Amino acid sequence: MIIPAVAGVIALLFVAYLSWDILRKNPGNEKMVQISKLVQEGAKAFLRREYTYVSIFVIVIAGLIAIAPMISDVQLGWKTSIAFVIGSVVSALAGYIGMSIATRANSRTAQGAIDEGLKGALSIAVSGGAVMGMSVVGLALLGLVIVYVVFQGDPTIVNGYAMGASLVALFARSGGGIFTKGADMGADLVGKVEANIPEDDPRNPAVIADNVGDNVGDVAGLGADLLESYVESMIASIAIAAGLGIATLQLLPLQIASAGIVASIIGVLYVKMAARNNPQKALMTGTYISAILTAVATFLIVKYNGVEFTDESGTTYGVLGPFWATLAGVISGIIVGLTSEYYTSSDYKPVRKLAEESQSGPALTVTGGISLGMASTAIPVIVLVIAVLVSVKFAGIYGVAMAAFGMLATTGMVVSVDSYGPIADNAGGIAEMAQLDPSVRKITDNLDAVGNTTAAIGKGFAIGSAAFAAMGLLVAYMHSVELEAADIKDPYVLVGLILGGMLPYFFSSMLFQAVSKAAFQMIEEVRRQFREIKGLMEGKALPDSARCVDISTKGAINGMLVPGVMAILAPVLVGLILGKAALAGLLVGSLVSGLVLGIQMANSGGAMDNAKKYIEEGHFGGKGSETHKAAVIGDTVGDPLKDTVGPSINILIKLMSVISLVLAPLFK
Amino acid sequence: MIIPAVAGVIALLFVAYLSWDILRKNPGNEKMVQISKLVQEGAKAFLRREYTYVSIFVIVIAGLIAIAPMISDVQLGWKTSIAFVIGSVVSALAGYIGMSIATRANSRTAQGAIDEGLKGALSIAVSGGAVMGMSVVGLALLGLVIVYVVFQGDPTIVNGYAMGASLVALFARSGGGIFTKGADMGADLVGKVEANIPEDDPRNPAVIADNVGDNVGDVAGLGADLLESYVESMIASIAIAAGLGIATLQLLPLQIASAGIVASIIGVLYVKMAARNNPQKALMTGTYISAILTAVATFLIVKYNGVEFTDESGTTYGVLGPFWATLAGVISGIIVGLTSEYYTSSDYKPVRKLAEESQSGPALTVTGGISLGMASTAIPVIVLVIAVLVSVKFAGIYGVAMAAFGMLATTGMVVSVDSYGPIADNAGGIAEMAQLDPSVRKITDNLDAVGNTTAAIGKGFAIGSAAFAAMGLLVAYMHSVELEAADIKDPYVLVGLILGGMLPYFFSSMLFQAVSKAAFQMIEEVRRQFREIKGLMEGKALPDSARCVDISTKGAINGMLVPGVMAILAPVLVGLILGKAALAGLLVGSLVSGLVLGIQMANSGGAMDNAKKYIEEGHFGGKGSETHKAAVIGDTVGDPLKDTVGPSINILIKLMSVISLVLAPLFK
Repeated sequence: MIIPAVAGVIALLFVAYLSWDILRKNPGNEKMVQISKLVQEGAKAFLRREYTYVSIFVIVIAGLIAIAPMISDVQLGWKTSIAFVIGSVVSALAGYIGMSIATRANSRTAQGAIDEGLKGALSIAVSGGAVMGMSVVGLALLGLVIVYVVFQGDPTIVNGYAMGASLVALFARSGGGIFTKGADMGADLVGKVEANIPEDDPRNPAVIADNVGDNVGDVAGLGADLLESYVESMIASIAIAAGLGIATLQLLPLQIASAGIVASIIGVLYVKMAARNNPQKALMTGTYISAILTAVATFLIVKYNGVEFTDESGTTYGVLGPFWATLAGVISGIIVGLTSEYYTSSDYKPVRKLAEESQSGPALTVTGGISLGMASTAIPVIVLVIAVLVSVKFAGIYGVAMAAFGMLATTGMVVSVDSYGPIADNAGGIAEMAQLDPSVRKITDNLDAVGNTTAAIGKGFAIGSAAFAAMGLLVAYMHSVELEAADIKDPYVLVGLILGGMLPYFFSSMLFQAVSKAAFQMIEEVRRQFREIKGLMEGKALPDSARCVDISTKGAINGMLVPGVMAILAPVLVGLILGKAALAGLLVGSLVSGLVLGIQMANSGGAMDNAKKYIEEGHFGGKGSETHKAAVIGDTVGDPLKDTVGPSINILIKLMSVISLVLAPLFK
Repeated sequence: MIIPAVAGVIALLFVAYLSWDILRKNPGNEKMVQISKLVQEGAKAFLRREYTYVSIFVIVIAGLIAIAPMISDVQLGWKTSIAFVIGSVVSALAGYIGMSIATRANSRTAQGAIDEGLKGALSIAVSGGAVMGMSVVGLALLGLVIVYVVFQGDPTIVNGYAMGASLVALFARSGGGIFTKGADMGADLVGKVEANIPEDDPRNPAVIADNVGDNVGDVAGLGADLLESYVESMIASIAIAAGLGIATLQLLPLQIASAGIVASIIGVLYVKMAARNNPQKALMTGTYISAILTAVATFLIVKYNGVEFTDESGTTYGVLGPFWATLAGVISGIIVGLTSEYYTSSDYKPVRKLAEESQSGPALTVTGGISLGMASTAIPVIVLVIAVLVSVKFAGIYGVAMAAFGMLATTGMVVSVDSYGPIADNAGGIAEMAQLDPSVRKITDNLDAVGNTTAAIGKGFAIGSAAFAAMGLLVAYMHSVELEAADIKDPYVLVGLILGGMLPYFFSSMLFQAVSKAAFQMIEEVRRQFREIKGLMEGKALPDSARCVDISTKGAINGMLVPGVMAILAPVLVGLILGKAALAGLLVGSLVSGLVLGIQMANSGGAMDNAKKYIEEGHFGGKGSETHKAAVIGDTVGDPLKDTVGPSINILIKLMSVISLVLAPLFK
């Protein structure tokens, strides 16, 4: 237990170093600092409001868990409550730290581009992303060690920790996603389409909200999402190992996590040093370095600390079994990520074909985009299926949880690389708004584009690990409720499966509506400001951007509550009314339907975005052509798919699984 | 066995009477006859080509089944082959008869509107639809009786009959769907958007293909779809009853089907007689009359012919159990249908809100339409779940199959009401092209609009019954392969579930691409004709519509082959490679994911269509406004969703289930 604690502390020390390193950099001229301040304040205002509402949920749920044993014979209690609260605090804190630094790194990245060109900008942006990434893993691991030690590894209590992280993740992802896309769509629909002013134009009152959105959605939301997966895959392996009664296997994930943290730090440092002219190569190499180092460390850890073990079916697995499972996870995660890249990057055929189809108008862009996303589900699903079979073959069900963990051991690096994108994006916005030299915007655009590519691998890991984690949690849940088997032809299981298949759809529809509503209000407000603020269009008066931030914040908070409540209540109600077998069905049903829906949405949205960018580069008529207009419509449809709804589905699946696991005593 | 045979013959006699009644009507003036002829020839050309390709599939598969016992110890054989061939011939024949008459009823409906107004037109259109409807049930039941008697009710042989019907249905639905939407989108995108000529304008070369499409997609495709469900739900109840070893229960569905035929004839006659000024009321009342008569007859049949029985779990069910299960099916089918209507009719809030959202541009129309479809999945799924639990409660798993059959006993009426829509639509097209008095078009538009509403109930029955039939087939399959249980946490089952969840997405993407491709080729051809045929735009020259029909036909045939092969091979490969438990998972996974995807697509598409029509009525700016343009884009996106991809998913699910059942000896 000392090793993971030390690793967690090292991660946080690295966070402190990176923060210091960023903050001592030149934040740029007055104008840049002023814009960055607006973004900081907007982000902080949103987080404050979000966390207020989340706290209410946390307190109510913690209270219910704590008093459960007093009013019934359900074996929960205050210990689980405490673990739950710690889990939620850890996630919220990581989000807060990551966002504080990310919103300060943006103007410094722009200034870095002025002072030192590409290398300077990349170094600062990556440091900013790494603050989020290393906070996630450092806090998550440290929190888990504390909970694990204090409660002597009792799985029914430790599981509460994952549930806390999961709850915060749901609100961070869905709230952040609604915020970012409501602001983005509102800014674009009035600014670009109606008023015909360029993207990120300082006259557009919604631009600051859009920049805040990049941070709350893509930095804090993504961080919370992966923090949850990270914790859950560890919890699942621990719970399964505890079920087998083998202490060594319970400790393996913690040890691998420690190695992953060191490997991630090395990866981040490599990127900061290696970056010269080819940022893409630096980021990819850094990612691969972390992955390979982690794999090597895993091999050594498993070889020297692992044991032969036998599962309930009587099958015996070799010492190295968990290593092969982990490796299957890592490799499948990379393949899933590369598949996303193939389907969403304009370097390959699918996006180029989509751009071509846009010549026949927006309807064919949208149909083509949806169709592309659907086609893109095949390879990831087949790869995940193979990885499941391989990990089961080498380490039984424990292997499935370890495969998930294989993808997540390098979470520190993955989140760093992912969060760097929005910082570069923000820096570009600041360059535009502060009317810096176009060369600055060119550098940040370059970084932003690279970010999209490397983020694809991060998405692959997020999706794949969510699926694996959900499977691990399912097994742990069935073990906890003492459900030997759930036969798919048992009507209750079947009914649970079908209900579970529907939930991601209903949940998605609520998020869509929240985004539309937020966008609609933003459109009205931007139109109002253009109309009422004299001199705004001539650049003589400033827009009231705080008001736009406020509208997005309210839209996000209002929009996230109902889906959040649904995600919490659905498993509870099904478990209580239809029983524990139906609940098992529900979890699998939501995984079966949500996994593909999530992949489809992410890739449809990404492809439509990049098809638009490809056309803007001058293909098929370029900017301003009818083809481009069609592609812009496609992009606007795709935006909420890839940034709000798609990523939230992952969390829905995981949250329902972990709630079922924690509340297992209720359904037994 | 005599009763169902007699009922089948009565249905076919009624078909003969209706056909005679239609053909003796005045087919209209020379121009109308000429247009109708073009549609007839186009439809026939398509069917001929489609059936040629289907024949190859049928012959190859029949051959493989026949020689299976010679090259391995798989217990299939020539008897199953024969049943399979009969099933496919029956379905193809019903499609041929229905389409021959439907394409002759179109001009007569237009002439009926001239001669006798609304009543005359409605009467002919309904008769035309009823030819399809009663052919479906008459031929399906008669064929089943023959197969059942000849092969002494051996389920492993009789199942082949359902597989034949299923195979034809897949190609009819997907091929017909590609044809109709490729032609429709092509006609609209050039005609309405580029050349600015109205819908159904005779100068547009793709208009005839569009009218042919209505017939091949909505008449023949729908008929084949419901014929398949009709046969499969009977087969499933027979197989389950055979598993229980109770002969009486095997005969119940055949007796109820006989009563359903008589009730459907009464319903059709009622509509023909009652139609005065309110066609909607006549159609709805007719549908309810058939449903109620069937329910009463079912009560009597079950009460006097039913038996108490005990299933494998040892639960005993009362004599009336199957009646309650059937009733649960009927009621849930109606609720599912009414829910579709609520979400897709402009009389209610969702579509009006969608029309309102279109004011903010096409992106919000599309997002709103997708979101609406997703929201619309909740009620149908919950209703179906309740119906499953009720039918299981009263009659075990046999009850689930009987619930499916409850919805399908009135298939004759349902298909009649559904197929009447395209005939009225075609009549409207002929009125436009033959430049008849606008009052004719007004009548046919009225009939067409009513058709959309009543068709919603038909869709509810199609979706609900497909889900029930798939569940029944699953149970029958697991029984056949001697799989006692398929535990969802068994990695092979889980992997099967996840693969199954992906298939509807991959299948859909292929259909989308086929439609886009067909539409694209049609666009090119229409543009070419406008460019090259001198005097066409001035109305002095005729377009080459045969060429457009040919393009759609080729597009449909090419587009249906690969998805068809996939649907056939997927269960076979999974069964052979991953085993029978994984295959059970695959079937359930495709049901879980495909059911909601199908409902979402159908309702998203229907809502976007009707939002456009609502705006055309003068709301939010009316025809020609920016809002209308946005809605037209939404409608174009929605078209393939509701008429090609959505309905085909049902068949994918059913076909994979029935293939697994028939080939069970291969996986045992």
